[in-house]
This record gives sequence, C-alpha cells and structure tokens, in this order.
Amino acid sequence: MNPTLAPSAVIEALRAELGPQAVRAGADLPVRHHNDASGLPASVPLVVVRPADTAGVAAAMRICHAHGVAVVPQGGLTGLCGGARAAPDQVALSLERLVGIEEIDPAAATLTVRAGTPLETVQQAAADAGFFCPLDLGARGSCAIGGNLATNAGGNRVIRYGMAREMVLGLEVVLPDGGVVTSLNKMIKNNAGFDLKHLFIGSEGTLGIITRVVLRLYPKPASTLVALCAVNGYDDVLTLLASARQNLGPLLSAFEVMWPEFWQFANTHAPRARNPLADDATPYGAYVLVEALGTDEAMDTPRFEAWLGQLLEDGVVPNAAIAQSLADARAFWALRDASGEFHPLWPGHLAYDVGLPVARMEDCVIRCRAALAEAFPGIDSFYYGHIGDGNLHLIVHLPGVPKQPKDAVNAIVYGLVREFGGTVSAEHGIGTLKRPWLGHARSPEEIALMRVIKNALDPLGLLNPGKVL
Amino acid sequence: MNPTLAPSAVIEALRAELGPQAVRAGADLPVRHHNDASGLPASVPLVVVRPADTAGVAAAMRICHAHGVAVVPQGGLTGLCGGARAAPDQVALSLERLVGIEEIDPAAATLTVRAGTPLETVQQAAADAGFFCPLDLGARGSCAIGGNLATNAGGNRVIRYGMAREMVLGLEVVLPDGGVVTSLNKMIKNNAGFDLKHLFIGSEGTLGIITRVVLRLYPKPASTLVALCAVNGYDDVLTLLASARQNLGPLLSAFEVMWPEFWQFANTHAPRARNPLADDATPYGAYVLVEALGTDEAMDTPRFEAWLGQLLEDGVVPNAAIAQSLADARAFWALRDASGEFHPLWPGHLAYDVGLPVARMEDCVIRCRAALAEAFPGIDSFYYGHIGDGNLHLIVHLPGVPKQPKDAVNAIVYGLVREFGGTVSAEHGIGTLKRPWLGHARSPEEIALMRVIKNALDPLGLLNPGKVL
Repeated sequence: MNPTLAPSAVIEALRAELGPQAVRAGADLPVRHHNDASGLPASVPLVVVRPADTAGVAAAMRICHAHGVAVVPQGGLTGLCGGARAAPDQVALSLERLVGIEEIDPAAATLTVRAGTPLETVQQAAADAGFFCPLDLGARGSCAIGGNLATNAGGNRVIRYGMAREMVLGLEVVLPDGGVVTSLNKMIKNNAGFDLKHLFIGSEGTLGIITRVVLRLYPKPASTLVALCAVNGYDDVLTLLASARQNLGPLLSAFEVMWPEFWQFANTHAPRARNPLADDATPYGAYVLVEALGTDEAMDTPRFEAWLGQLLEDGVVPNAAIAQSLADARAFWALRDASGEFHPLWPGHLAYDVGLPVARMEDCVIRCRAALAEAFPGIDSFYYGHIGDGNLHLIVHLPGVPKQPKDAVNAIVYGLVREFGGTVSAEHGIGTLKRPWLGHARSPEEIALMRVIKNALDPLGLLNPGKVL
Repeated sequence: MNPTLAPSAVIEALRAELGPQAVRAGADLPVRHHNDASGLPASVPLVVVRPADTAGVAAAMRICHAHGVAVVPQGGLTGLCGGARAAPDQVALSLERLVGIEEIDPAAATLTVRAGTPLETVQQAAADAGFFCPLDLGARGSCAIGGNLATNAGGNRVIRYGMAREMVLGLEVVLPDGGVVTSLNKMIKNNAGFDLKHLFIGSEGTLGIITRVVLRLYPKPASTLVALCAVNGYDDVLTLLASARQNLGPLLSAFEVMWPEFWQFANTHAPRARNPLADDATPYGAYVLVEALGTDEAMDTPRFEAWLGQLLEDGVVPNAAIAQSLADARAFWALRDASGEFHPLWPGHLAYDVGLPVARMEDCVIRCRAALAEAFPGIDSFYYGHIGDGNLHLIVHLPGVPKQPKDAVNAIVYGLVREFGGTVSAEHGIGTLKRPWLGHARSPEEIALMRVIKNALDPLGLLNPGKVL
C-alpha cells in the first residue's frame, strides 16, 4: 500500500466512483468474503468492492492502482488452494454482481457470459438452447465461470472435452492498471497475432481480471453409457485404457480408476452407492468406471456391450457391470463420488490433486503407500482419479491424532511427484497452499519465465500478490 | 546490429562455437534459405546457422544476442506470410538438422519430437505406433513440426481435433538471450503455474525458438465417411451444419463449403475430380463436403447413410452422393483440393485466409462479390473454406492485366472483414504480409498487450523483428 495514503482513502475513492451499494467494509462486509474453500484461517479484507459491469471493474482497478493497494479477485470462492483469499490490507474485488448470459449464437455455437455467473446457470442456458456445456465440477451451483477459467478447471470429462481452457474462444480482461482488453472472439480459427486469452486462463487472477467470456458450445450427447470394470492389476488398467481409447474413440468421456482401499471405503461409506459387481468378495487390483457419451442410443448401446463383452472374454476384465438405466449410472458414479464422504467423516484429512505419467502411476502409488506406512504406522491412504488424464487424487488420514502430520505427508507425496516427473497440481491450481511446492513441478527456468510475464503485466505487483509465484 | 562489431564477427563467433558444418554464408549459403512460400522477393540472410541440438540453438542465440544481431527462425519454409524470411543483416537460424522422433509413450499417448522434423515423418511415426496424428496440411512433406506450432497451423480437421495448439502438451524453447526453457510435459492436466507453451505457439517465432515438442496422440479412426451435398442456399448450409454437429457429434471431422464459382472452377480444372452429383446442370446455391471419422465401420456407415437420407427426405439437401470407396472419397476431396489449381493457372492471383462469424458469412460473400465486380468489372472471385470453423478462403483474379490490383482488393476484403467482426488471418498467421492489416482484426488494446509481451521476452527486439507486430 502506498504509505502516504490512509486505508480509508481508497475506500472513499471506491465509494465515490462506484456508489455505496458496490462497496462493503467494516461491519457491513459479508463473512463469505473472508475465505475460499482452502481450509485456511479466515482473513478479513480491507474492503469488498462489487462492480456490476466491466467499466466498474476497470474503475475499481484504476483507483486501487493509483492508491497502490493490492486487489484479490473473488468469484464463487470455491477454490481449494487459497487463491481468492484476501489479506487485511487488500481489496477483495468480487464478481458476484457481474452476472448474466449476454448472447447465444447458434450458428457459431457460442455462448457469451459475464464472469460472475455460476457455472450451473451457464450449463442450463446452453441446454435450453439445445447445446451442451461440458465443463462440470462438484461446485457447479456456486462456482463462477470466471473463476473456472482463472483456475483452468478440470473435472470428470477432460479426457473428451479437455480442460476449461479448451472451451474458451474469447475473453474480456481488466488489467492491473484498469485497462480493458476486449477480445470476445467467436471464431475457432483466429491466428491474427498472439492468442492473449491463454495468458489469463489458469493464471489464478494474477495477471488480469476476467470480466466476460465467449465459450464454445457442443452438441448434446444422445446417449450415456457407463460400465464398472474390475481388473486384476494396473497392467490391465492400461490395456483397458488403450482399448477404450481405440474402440470408443472420441465418445470416451470418463476413465476413472479406484484403487482397492478407495473401493472398500466407497462401498462402506457412500450413501447412495451399491456394488453392482457379483462375486466381489476378494478385492480386485483396481476398479474402473468407464463412460461414453454417444450420438445414437439405439446403435451405441450394442456397440458398447460388444466392446466390453470382448474384454470379458479375453480376460482383461474379469468382472464388470453395465448400467441398464439412469439410476444404475447414478449409482455407479456414486461410488466414484464417495470422495465427498471423506470430509464429513474425517474433517482434517489431507487431500492431494497431483498429476503423474500414466505408465508409472502404479509404481508411484506403491511407493507412496509404503512410505506413508513406514513414517506413520496405522495411516490410511486412498487413491483414485482421472487416470486417462494422468490425474491422481490421494486422501491421507492418520486416525487418533489431534492434528494430521501435514508437513511430513506433503514432503512424502510431493517428493514422489518430483521423482516421478509429475505435477503438484493437476486441476486445483497453486494459490498459496501449493506455492512452496511449485519448484517440485516446474524448473527454475520455467518459474523465472512466469515471473517475467507477471512483472510485464503487473509491474507494481498489485494483482493477487503472493499467489502462484 | 551492434554498430561496433563487423558482420563478419558474428559469423566467426558462430563458426568457432558450432563448427563450420553448422554455418553457411556467402556463396555457400543454400538458395532455399532466401525465402519462404509468401511470394515476396528473395532475400539473402547474412548467414544461415544450422544447429543439430538444443544446446547449439542456445549457443547461436547467445552469440547473436551478444553481437546485437537479429535472428529469424526457419523451419520448412512453407509459410505463406513472410514470417521466416530473413533480411540481409539478419541471421537465419534453421532447424533443418534438429530432426528425429525422441520417444513415443503408448500409455500417455504422446510423441516427443525435435522441432525440425517434417510433419509427414511425425504422422508416419504415430501411425507405426498404432496412433493417429491428426494435424495435416498440404505442405506435410516439407513443413516442420516446429513451424506448424510457431504458426498454430490449422488444416481440414480443425472442427474435430482443433488447431495445432490443442495437440501440444509440452515444449522446449530457446529464448532470445539463449536461455533454455524445457517444459516437456506429457500430462493432459497440469495446473502448476502459468501454462507457458501457449505464449510460444502461434507467436511466429517472435518470442522464442521451439526446439522440442510433446504432441498428444489420438486413436486411429476405424472408418472414413465422406459425402458431397448440394443445397439451395446458405440457410440450408447452416441447417446442414447444425444437423451434422448434432447427429455426427465428435465424429464430424470436416465441413467444407464451396460456393458456385468455386464448384464450377473445380469441376473444370481439378485433374482428378469428377462430379458425383446426378442432375447438377443448374448450379445449386452451395456445395458441402462432409466427412466423419468413425470408430466402427460396420456400424458407422448405415448411421451416416440414415442421417443423410433423412436430410434428403426433408429437402434440406436436394442432391447428394456418399463415397462408396476410398477412391470415391479421394475424388470428392479432389474437388475441394482444386484450390491448388489456381496457382499454376494464374500465378499472380490473390489468395485470402480470413475468419468470419459463421452466421454472417454469406452476407459478407455477397458484399465482397459485388464490391469487387464494381471496382474491377470482369474480375473473378472464388469462395470456399472450413465453414464449421468460421474460416473462409477467397481467391481473386483479374484477367488480362500484367499486375493484379492487390492493394485495392486487400482494402475491399479486409475492410469487409473488419466490418463483419472477422479476422484477417484464420490459419496462415500474420508474418510481414498481413502486418498492415492486424489492426482490422485486433483492437489497439490487444495490440498494445502483444507489445508488452514481446518487450518482456525480447527487450532488445532481436528475435524475428518486424514480424506480426
């Protein structure tokens, strides 16, 4: 903060420019702006400013820039890494009033939306227009589309539709000095100069504030096919993955692997789950949920059944079940979504979102399991994830202790990630929580280049400082 | 160039560091390095340096940086906009010796390759390993994969697989000062900090020199389905496009529209083409080549036929033919590829690669046709392109004049592009040829931000200066 100006000066300037409705401070500052979903201690920002349009975001940035006050963009506050948490001397700039669908263009198959709009609203608008918005994650009802793009959200269908980044055609961004770059491109092909949108997507609000977005829309799938497959070991997981890629081609929309500990947890604790596999008394080596989104229900179902039947016959998949109804499909997915049950059961558990080379993932899981057991006898660890994308989730819980051994487990998990050439964040981002581990996934040269970009766009370091880098 | 050093000093320094084999100057400088495929006059660089590995590229860049000499990266020299053309006081850095596939990882479905490798070699290596590399363009035999990424190449299958950018998982880049950033990521999901690769892809060698690449591989398609459809007008083109998107879903791999002038030209001049449409005496309003790449030949063919049959019955498509063999499919594509016949027939013709909002493309074509006819009575213009991607190609030729009215036609075409909110380059890039028109597709704020990035990465302006910006 500029030491010559009192904190109240920036609040007064924001009120004068944006009106009292847009500025909340002191007792008037809603408690939801004290934190994101990272589990870090609450932190009360200096002020929350809530512009209702791009011009308001630009005005707020200009004022904060002139006062030398740092700004933290806030969307739906569902981030898991602390990226939207504002310190007591920082302005929280909330996009919560910058909402609404601006346009759907059926010929271009695009949707233009303001950044604070909840993802679920975007999904519904696309569906109402006869299209499909494939971006989907658990927080869909509360997360904001701008935050999804600022963090390059992933989710379950990345294997088919890619990360959030790949669904974006255009962006409007407010820069740290309040400049507005409107680049609401609707064309799939546009090679006129640098593609600026990729600077901002996934930069966690450190380079600019996304205010409007042009998303690509996709055809609605005509059919959903889901199977649960038990296999004897990881080699067969890889054989099944190769076969799914080849035979289902671009219809393959999810390939979710559950290791035995996770499978047992899910069958015990997931409220809506039921094990569809006959003869599953002895645990198999791994369980795989395969989903395909088809184009013709009548023809896709027999094809899917024939494909899986061949794998059963070949012995690659010794046990499997195909969902015969939407209720079946939901029950299968409820097993995978048992990951949501760890929190209520063990509120302080440790959760990881890492990436690993697909071929070496099992070696890493074996090493991790052994290292944790050696360091903390009796510790529980659960492995599952989007294996087709190289994304492993890991839950760790040591029973009977007042505080989980976070630092030691971090060192084991992220040490293995570095050794195996993986990444410390596959889809959740870096924020502040993973910042100490960025060097385990990126080289000094990569991090130095990130700093060059940060300094070029935000030379005063006023936009979301201390996040990512 | 640093005025205190003679041009010969940089040549000597390069020879001393890289060896005489890697440095060609004077009479020893091969003529192919005098130009790319832009049609601009030839230009002889000061020297051509041809490193055989990344360390050599880095050493060459360090030396040129120390001498203050500008460097122009050269790949396969097939670019159409002058981006790889070096001036007499500039060093051409050719990647032609930095070739070879380094690794194919079947579990990750990735291919790691050196930047100078021809695209066709990459396609073949992927095929030999049982995978598919969907990037494809006419210059496949001579273009280099590094150049494809530096220009974010497009091609015929963008509607399904995206631009070259979307096929890249990792890059290694040499920066203007000779620093090396090795970021050979193989994971689909990696949100650990800024995604640096997107800075370099599509920046036409102005920010760094791509030396190695990790490409994503895809399953080999099991079937190819091709149809030629005649429709009465552009409204029906849009209906057909919407139907193809919905019914073929992710199998849709090409949607190529030919306006009547182009169709007549193709049927007259394409050597291997034959019109498969019965009763095509009166030209229709537009002709559409639709391609789908399927996963199961036995099931895909009847589905494709049923889809098209319904459109015939509904009257959306009054006339159509489905390829019954690979030879048929090639003959259908030969009509679309008649675009290659303009050059031998009219060597000086004007060719455009623009993007337009899909819904307004026909309005723009009508306006363009009328404006050209008014300005130059007797002028020919031909319209065709990848309409599903918003990409229109346009060929203009005024018969019987010694020199085509290039500046005037540029002003008409790019003026309409600006008016319709399109782009002056959909897939060919900007280089030097389209640099005067960049402001027709990008706002002053967008261009200013591009300059910020350029200055941050190349503060001395030594890497491919004068290109793009």
